[in-house]
Amino acid sequence: MADEVVVLGYNLSMFDIRVRITLAEKGIKYEYKEEDLVNTKSALLLQMNPTYKKIPVLIHNGKPISESLIIMEYIEEVWKDKAPLLPTDPYQRAEARFWAKFVEDKVHEVAKRIWLGKVNEHEADKKELIENLKHLEDFLGDKSYFGGDKFGFVDIALIPFYKWFSTYEKVGNFKLDFPKIMLWGERCLNNVESVSKLLSDEKDVYEFVLMIRKRIGVD
Amino acid sequence: MADEVVVLGYNLSMFDIRVRITLAEKGIKYEYKEEDLVNTKSALLLQMNPTYKKIPVLIHNGKPISESLIIMEYIEEVWKDKAPLLPTDPYQRAEARFWAKFVEDKVHEVAKRIWLGKVNEHEADKKELIENLKHLEDFLGDKSYFGGDKFGFVDIALIPFYKWFSTYEKVGNFKLDFPKIMLWGERCLNNVESVSKLLSDEKDVYEFVLMIRKRIGVD
Repeated sequence: MADEVVVLGYNLSMFDIRVRITLAEKGIKYEYKEEDLVNTKSALLLQMNPTYKKIPVLIHNGKPISESLIIMEYIEEVWKDKAPLLPTDPYQRAEARFWAKFVEDKVHEVAKRIWLGKVNEHEADKKELIENLKHLEDFLGDKSYFGGDKFGFVDIALIPFYKWFSTYEKVGNFKLDFPKIMLWGERCLNNVESVSKLLSDEKDVYEFVLMIRKRIGVD
Repeated sequence: MADEVVVLGYNLSMFDIRVRITLAEKGIKYEYKEEDLVNTKSALLLQMNPTYKKIPVLIHNGKPISESLIIMEYIEEVWKDKAPLLPTDPYQRAEARFWAKFVEDKVHEVAKRIWLGKVNEHEADKKELIENLKHLEDFLGDKSYFGGDKFGFVDIALIPFYKWFSTYEKVGNFKLDFPKIMLWGERCLNNVESVSKLLSDEKDVYEFVLMIRKRIGVD
């Protein structure tokens, strides 16, 4: 039986983009169903992710999986022979999981407080975001990718956020000065086809954030 | 070379207990170094977890790993033949990871807002905690363990919190009515030696929380 793979997603979601880059890297064909998150969630989404009611959801032969990093590990395990995203060494695998989780907890969650927060009420968050990106940049060091010579798990976890940095700066009215991360982002865009195809446009991200800020009344 | 395994921990930490139960289930000998978190962190902890400066840290032959769920996966991968904690089926593995993360994000994080919060200022959190435990109880269903017939990954992720439920109730002044989870907790205590050995005492948990509340000035 051919695999039936469906992604419930939202085009601008960093978590959705992680899943689609992973599928593209593995060469897996899938049907993409975009959710209209701004208005109403589909019955299929509510049925497939009753706990969180959130995208992305990967539906593989009828069975749903949620949470982008967990979906990425699932794809890695099911299609293990094609383009491995995690190293085989357990210590390096733990490192990759650590930094992927760090992106979630310490980049996204902190940045979200800035772009969803009131202007001038997030000085501590800006300081924390800069410290956290410094940790990430130190881990990247002089490697081409977070995964070393090869684009891998941590790269996929972080790359969708690359197109959000300018929005963080504009909404927060501050500068993010991370030359190694910037070079890494350009390297991914230039060398990894799935990244150049799937990454959001900075302008779309910024307009989306302005729309959300208007909706929740912080602008 | 024999494996050198060190745990930097804190006796009452739910995350520390996860790691020690995992090591015990795998039959791995280790040296336990308890941190004095209330006063000052050791130089070793700062060196081994420079990013978070938090316990637990597993040091395996000199190399540190942080984050309890990531440590658990690491132990599972290095000592894979002894007492597997995760199923082999990728879908069931994804399910186990999903619920273990759910315990972290949707039980611990919500409960923490209650036990660190001001009295009578966490009505929404109590409602959310009850909803989230209901999801967990639904997933448990009539199984003996979250892992099915065998004590496994999700069981280890949740069991240290079992001894915190009465503290949530006392500090929050509400009732948690989850008979299946309660029976599951007793089952783990009665049938799994590492659980009965390592779980905290409810009274110690409550006194610890009262001490913390006094320190941060919410009581």
